[in-house]
Amino acid sequence: MKVAILGLGSVGRGVVSMLAKKDLGIVVTGIADSRGGVMDQAGIDIQAVLEQKTKTGCCGDPTIRGEEIVRNGDYDVLVEVTPTDIRTGEPALTSIRTALSRGKHVVTSNKGPLALHYTELMHLAAENGVQLRYEATVCGAIPIIQTLQHGLAGNEVLAVYGILNGTCNYILTRMADEGLTYDQALAEAREMGYAEADPTFDVKGIDTALKLVILANTIWKNGITLRDVECTGIDLLTAEALTLAGSQNCTIRLIGEVIPGRKLLRVSPRILPKKHPLVVRDTLNAVTVVTDMAGAITQVGKGAGSVETASAVIGDLLFIRDCHVEGD
Amino acid sequence: MKVAILGLGSVGRGVVSMLAKKDLGIVVTGIADSRGGVMDQAGIDIQAVLEQKTKTGCCGDPTIRGEEIVRNGDYDVLVEVTPTDIRTGEPALTSIRTALSRGKHVVTSNKGPLALHYTELMHLAAENGVQLRYEATVCGAIPIIQTLQHGLAGNEVLAVYGILNGTCNYILTRMADEGLTYDQALAEAREMGYAEADPTFDVKGIDTALKLVILANTIWKNGITLRDVECTGIDLLTAEALTLAGSQNCTIRLIGEVIPGRKLLRVSPRILPKKHPLVVRDTLNAVTVVTDMAGAITQVGKGAGSVETASAVIGDLLFIRDCHVEGD
Repeated sequence: MKVAILGLGSVGRGVVSMLAKKDLGIVVTGIADSRGGVMDQAGIDIQAVLEQKTKTGCCGDPTIRGEEIVRNGDYDVLVEVTPTDIRTGEPALTSIRTALSRGKHVVTSNKGPLALHYTELMHLAAENGVQLRYEATVCGAIPIIQTLQHGLAGNEVLAVYGILNGTCNYILTRMADEGLTYDQALAEAREMGYAEADPTFDVKGIDTALKLVILANTIWKNGITLRDVECTGIDLLTAEALTLAGSQNCTIRLIGEVIPGRKLLRVSPRILPKKHPLVVRDTLNAVTVVTDMAGAITQVGKGAGSVETASAVIGDLLFIRDCHVEGD
Repeated sequence: MKVAILGLGSVGRGVVSMLAKKDLGIVVTGIADSRGGVMDQAGIDIQAVLEQKTKTGCCGDPTIRGEEIVRNGDYDVLVEVTPTDIRTGEPALTSIRTALSRGKHVVTSNKGPLALHYTELMHLAAENGVQLRYEATVCGAIPIIQTLQHGLAGNEVLAVYGILNGTCNYILTRMADEGLTYDQALAEAREMGYAEADPTFDVKGIDTALKLVILANTIWKNGITLRDVECTGIDLLTAEALTLAGSQNCTIRLIGEVIPGRKLLRVSPRILPKKHPLVVRDTLNAVTVVTDMAGAITQVGKGAGSVETASAVIGDLLFIRDCHVEGD
C-alpha cells in the first residue's frame, strides 16, 4: 500500500518514523511540509528526509508542493496531518476533497475539515468508493472512533462524556494537587510542553468542542457544527474553587458531553467525585459511551503525543489495508 | 443477512430479543436450544419462539436438532451461544467447524472451542473465506477483541492486564467493603444471581484463564492453551487479607495478565492501590493493553449480562455485514 503524507510536525514525524521502523508493507511515496516536498514511487528514504528536515527546516525540494503530490502523486492513501484551522479547514480541506475525488482513501488527524464539513466529506468518500478515517482527531491513542463505528455497532448511543483535552486536564490536576492558581499551572504546562504559547484553543474549551462535534457526527451523522456546542473553558477557574471541591472529596474536570435525547452538546468545567471513572490525572484522556445494550463503556489513555497519535493514524491505515467497508 | 442461532440461554435470548427489537436488516432463519429447534427461510417469529420457550422449556420442534440447522440450514452467519465446555469444546466445536467448512461466517460467545483450538479454527475460517468472530467471549460488552484486532493494529502489545471475571470481582468488592468472609460474600453473590450453584469455574480463576488464552491467541496467534496459564483463584482469600490491604489504601483483585516478553500467562489475586485504574467495583470488568505506540489503554464496562453480551454478538454480526476482511 502506497501512502503520501502531508505535514511533518509532531504527528507526521511520529507516523513516518513508525512506518520506517515497522515492517507493515506500507510504502511512503510522497511527503510534504509547508515548505516543500519529496516524491518517489519506489519509496522514500524516510531517515534521509527526517535528517534534512532537522538540518534545513524543509523536508525536500521547495518546488514540490503538497498540492501537487495530492493532485498528481502515486498513492493509495493520503495521510493528512497538517495543523488544524478551525475557520476554513484549509489547506487540509482542499487536500482531502481532491484525494477523495481521485478515489484515494484518506486518513487524517486534522479536526478542522471534519468539524466543518463532516457530512459532505463522508458522502464524497462513499461516492468514490473509498474510506475517510480520522481516529487521530479525538483522544489520541484511544480507539474511540472505531469503538463507536464498529465495537458498539448496533447500540443506540444515549450519551458520550469525556475528558478530551490533556492540556486542560494537566492544569486542573496541578491546581488540585498543589493549590496552584490557574496562571501558575498554565505556566507549568507551557514549561512541560503541554500548552501552546497561545493556549486559547485548549483552555477556552474549543479543542474539546471540535472533538465533540466529530464524535456527535460519527454517531448521529446529522451535520452538527461548532455553533451547536455550548462552550465554557477553564480559564476563569480559581484555586479556591478547586480547594472547595477537594474538601468534599470531589475535583473539577473539563467535561465534553453529548446527550442526543436532550439535544445537548456542552463543554464545561464540572465537579466530579474523585472516584468517578472520568477523573484521570495529568494529560490523560477518558471517554465514556453510554448505550442501550452495552451500558457504560469507559476508555482511558494518552490523548496526545507524537507516537501515540501515530498509533491512531497507523491503526486507520491498517484498517484500510485489511478491511473493505461495504459501500467502498 | 440471514443468521441461525444455537443456544437460547441468557445470551441467546438477549441476541434474539435485540434482533427482534432493532431494525438491523438481520433475519433469523433458524433457532435451536438443546431440546429442539425451528427453521424458516422467510424469518422466524422471534416473539412466538420466546413465548414457547417460556411455556414449554423448548423453543420449537423436538425433531429439529441444532446439528441439522448447522448442516443444512439456510444462513449466512451461525451465532453459536451455547454453554462452554472446557474439556471438549463440544457441541460448539463441531457446530463451528461445520459452519466454517460450509463457507458460513461464525459469531460465538463460547470460550471452549477458541481456548482449545484457536489456531485451527481461524485457519479454517480463512481457508473458507469467512470470518470467525468472538467479541462476546471476553469482557462482555467491552469491545476488547476489536480493539486488539483493529483499534491498536500496528502496535506491539507489551502486556495485557485485566479483571476479566465479574463474579470474583463482586465477591472481592463485598469482602473489602463489608468485611465479609469469602463464604459470606459467595453466598451473597449466589443470591444476586452473579455466581453459579457450583462456583468453581469462576472462583478458581478458570474462567479468567480461558479469557487470557483467547486474548493471547488474538495477539500472538501462537497456539497458547489453558495448560500454559499459571492459575490461582480467590477461594482461599481471608477477610483478614482484605482488611490488611485496605489498611494500606490497597485492595485485592483477581488479575489475569499476559506478558509476552516474560512468557508469562498468569491468573492470581493481586494487591493493588485503591486508585489503580483496574480497581473497578462489583461485577465490572476492566482491561489494560500496554503497547509500544499507544502506551496503556484501559477499558472498563460490564463483563456479563444478557443484553450486554448481546451487544458484543450484534457488534460482530454488523462487522461481518459491513466489513470484508482481507483474506475472507
